[in-house]
Amino acid sequence: MDLKIKNLGIESGGKPIVFLNVNDADELGVSASGRIRIKHGGELTAIVNIASASVQKGYLGISKEVQKILNLEQDSVVDVQLSPFPKSLQFIRNKLNGKKLTDEEIHEIVNAVVNGNLSESEIASFVTSLHIQGLSLDEATSLSSSMVMTGKQLFLNAKQIVDKHSIGGVPGDKTTLLVVPIVAASGLNIPKTSSRAITSAAGTADRAETIMPVDLEISEMKEVVNKTNGCIVWGGALDLAPADDIFVKTEYSLCIDPLLLPSIMSKKKAVGATHLIVDIPTGRGAKVKTIGEADLLAKDIIELGKRLGIHCHCVLTYGEQPIGNTIGPSLEAREALGILMKKYQIPDLFDKVCHVAGSIFELTGQKNGFGLAKDILLSGKAEKKLREIISQQGGQSEIQLDDFGIGTNTFEYRSTEDGQVLWTDNSIMVEIARAAGAPKDKGSGIVFNKKNGDKVSKNDLLFTVYSEKSQKLSRAEQILDEKTPMGIGEKMEMLIHQVKESPIVKRTFVLDR
Amino acid sequence: MDLKIKNLGIESGGKPIVFLNVNDADELGVSASGRIRIKHGGELTAIVNIASASVQKGYLGISKEVQKILNLEQDSVVDVQLSPFPKSLQFIRNKLNGKKLTDEEIHEIVNAVVNGNLSESEIASFVTSLHIQGLSLDEATSLSSSMVMTGKQLFLNAKQIVDKHSIGGVPGDKTTLLVVPIVAASGLNIPKTSSRAITSAAGTADRAETIMPVDLEISEMKEVVNKTNGCIVWGGALDLAPADDIFVKTEYSLCIDPLLLPSIMSKKKAVGATHLIVDIPTGRGAKVKTIGEADLLAKDIIELGKRLGIHCHCVLTYGEQPIGNTIGPSLEAREALGILMKKYQIPDLFDKVCHVAGSIFELTGQKNGFGLAKDILLSGKAEKKLREIISQQGGQSEIQLDDFGIGTNTFEYRSTEDGQVLWTDNSIMVEIARAAGAPKDKGSGIVFNKKNGDKVSKNDLLFTVYSEKSQKLSRAEQILDEKTPMGIGEKMEMLIHQVKESPIVKRTFVLDR
Repeated sequence: MDLKIKNLGIESGGKPIVFLNVNDADELGVSASGRIRIKHGGELTAIVNIASASVQKGYLGISKEVQKILNLEQDSVVDVQLSPFPKSLQFIRNKLNGKKLTDEEIHEIVNAVVNGNLSESEIASFVTSLHIQGLSLDEATSLSSSMVMTGKQLFLNAKQIVDKHSIGGVPGDKTTLLVVPIVAASGLNIPKTSSRAITSAAGTADRAETIMPVDLEISEMKEVVNKTNGCIVWGGALDLAPADDIFVKTEYSLCIDPLLLPSIMSKKKAVGATHLIVDIPTGRGAKVKTIGEADLLAKDIIELGKRLGIHCHCVLTYGEQPIGNTIGPSLEAREALGILMKKYQIPDLFDKVCHVAGSIFELTGQKNGFGLAKDILLSGKAEKKLREIISQQGGQSEIQLDDFGIGTNTFEYRSTEDGQVLWTDNSIMVEIARAAGAPKDKGSGIVFNKKNGDKVSKNDLLFTVYSEKSQKLSRAEQILDEKTPMGIGEKMEMLIHQVKESPIVKRTFVLDR
Repeated sequence: MDLKIKNLGIESGGKPIVFLNVNDADELGVSASGRIRIKHGGELTAIVNIASASVQKGYLGISKEVQKILNLEQDSVVDVQLSPFPKSLQFIRNKLNGKKLTDEEIHEIVNAVVNGNLSESEIASFVTSLHIQGLSLDEATSLSSSMVMTGKQLFLNAKQIVDKHSIGGVPGDKTTLLVVPIVAASGLNIPKTSSRAITSAAGTADRAETIMPVDLEISEMKEVVNKTNGCIVWGGALDLAPADDIFVKTEYSLCIDPLLLPSIMSKKKAVGATHLIVDIPTGRGAKVKTIGEADLLAKDIIELGKRLGIHCHCVLTYGEQPIGNTIGPSLEAREALGILMKKYQIPDLFDKVCHVAGSIFELTGQKNGFGLAKDILLSGKAEKKLREIISQQGGQSEIQLDDFGIGTNTFEYRSTEDGQVLWTDNSIMVEIARAAGAPKDKGSGIVFNKKNGDKVSKNDLLFTVYSEKSQKLSRAEQILDEKTPMGIGEKMEMLIHQVKESPIVKRTFVLDR
């Protein structure tokens, strides 16, 4: 069937999407979500939407993506034919019906996802099936490899390439900003890619961006690592695992995460990691609630690592309160720099950093990793290394603690009673920091004066909320009027909470890959 | 945040969809598939898409649906705020994680589906969860009721309202065209709604449309039934279960059908049915392959009917070959009329029709249903009744067998050997009829000269393909070059087929609600 092109000027998120008039669709025998093949010089298979009014009979409405691929002009005439459903859809159906997928089948699916040959519904069904039916180790391995194969890769000329990853879920976790310079200062290569916040108050890329550019290309990243042994760049623009960026969109609103391990491991494999430490923050308020759960996850990570040729160890860390004394991009970056400059003493953060860096050292064959990490940190070599990295990534390497722009609108939250801090609610803290403007407003966030276990007197300052905008500070104050972010008491009170009617369980899940 | 309206002029299939520039989305803290609340006089929650080039910062791109609901003009300024995810999404997550849903939760989900508050991905995930986790009888009941509540209903002033439904999957099944006039002629009310073909060669609505208009509104349908006791109308425009029309879109490309029973029963409930016969064609090549499977399905149907106040019986019918001697809208309608006029003798179709109509009679308390149905058919009352219905629906009630427009391009398929017909492949027959133009070209299809068990000599005519267009006939011929639609042999050959490499299982599923 010959149809005239109508450029709709819309973006369809990478997928080739077309709109057919309902009469033409009938004539072709294609329904919504069916496929057609468009010929015009080149060929392209596109997913069909049915329009009644916006596209007239005889026309084919196309998205910008289709326009670009086939280089089509308004009113060009193209040949349109019914196309069968892609093979990958059959494989998705198999998974949905409980069958294990082979390596070839998974590769076909991941390819189709990256090439835009599957609709959002079909991808959502695949991700849902993986969540419900589970992934075998073979399937996880194939998914990881397929995601690497369909993305870009970093090739460094080194025998040992180390990396670290945190499962995430705990606010204030600026560990990476400290671990990378410590490890790089030891001479090991650590080409670190990081994410931006999706539902959290700051991702590592958001934190690092307050001191240096992080949106480097792969070639630039390679140069930085070659010169300094390390880097901290945003992974989002590197195209390391484009399939994952598509899967994560579906997972986000459904709050499921079946592809977590393949997602993590594919990105590590793509930068050539040979040794990897995975941090699993554990506890109430973290993603992983119990040590038993964390151990199972660790086992899966280590096994999957083996299959992919990455030597993995996991560290379970205390995740029941924010790490260190700050939440928010600039506040956290300043805190990290302050530790490297030996201006701040933050015991929990210091301990976590030395344990994670130390584990990397031990994984690569060194002894007394914790002591080695501590020595490098206290020697000032790590500060010097971070400044080298900042300089190579194009930032101001001479940055001082006063140079960070912190919000000037503040609100002090004080204790209304005597006692000690019994608990801190991570998710309420994130909500407050986000209401105050983080991660978008880099200078917004929270500074803690008291943490779990600290003694508190009535009227003591518990924490201060910082915001770049007074309007956003008010939003944060409003949350504090309604919710209790910290529990203060003399002894552990036994009542957790009452259930008076069918409760709606809030999403506490934080995506962070 | 204030944004200027940009009408994108696209249809988003009922859902309120907006496009935000990536910078504005960051500022609002909303990601793709998140929700925003738009205020402009009225209020509306819409699903967010992120655009980088097609919608500039400061603008809100909107679909026709949003434009209509809020009555927005180009460059109007609206207030936009981040909106939480709908409650229904939490319930979908619960199902996904294996929890049973309550009546209220299901009602919330179905409402959200109808109001466009859930994205295609989210709906796909729900449908996938239902497929994998299964539905309890309680859940199926709630889904049925919710679908009725969110749609329109037919209210007839009668104690007994009967209905019939076929699970579908067998080509050539024109049973309804005969059952409705037989039952209506007996004085029972049968307000029959039917579907059009999606993947088949003809739906009952397609068949009926060759002799009368079928796209009536509810008020017109009511008038026809009040005057004649029966009708055969297209259900698609009646809005009886709008949620189902949305679910079915997802199910179509995934080839799953977890909502089959709620879908069927909600539409029967919506027309007020008190007694229902469900035909379950059974056998290789049908949707339901074994009698065991069919019995389980029948049990579920009867139980669900009880909950909804519909008295159900099921009939299992032979589904291993097409029903009667024709496939294709006009050919099938002509065959049905021919039987009513006693011009044709088609034993299998005659038997099926009298059994289905007879079951309806027995379900409503009459004895010897089969005999009663046969009497009404042979007496000519059913023909008279059909002509009344045709007249009331606005068709030519005097229509004769010669008035049907049948394709003039024909291809005869003959036997290459002696023997008998061992099997007929339903799905290949559908493929041929569709290639020849059915259901879009109403006069295209197949006429059989031989059916399963018939003796055949070499060169005997097995069937003839009819097409309105010579080009489409060639496509059908091509299929016959490649595939074997009928098996002819002297005895059952033991080899079914060989598997030489990993086979791709073809979709044989036919949606027909």
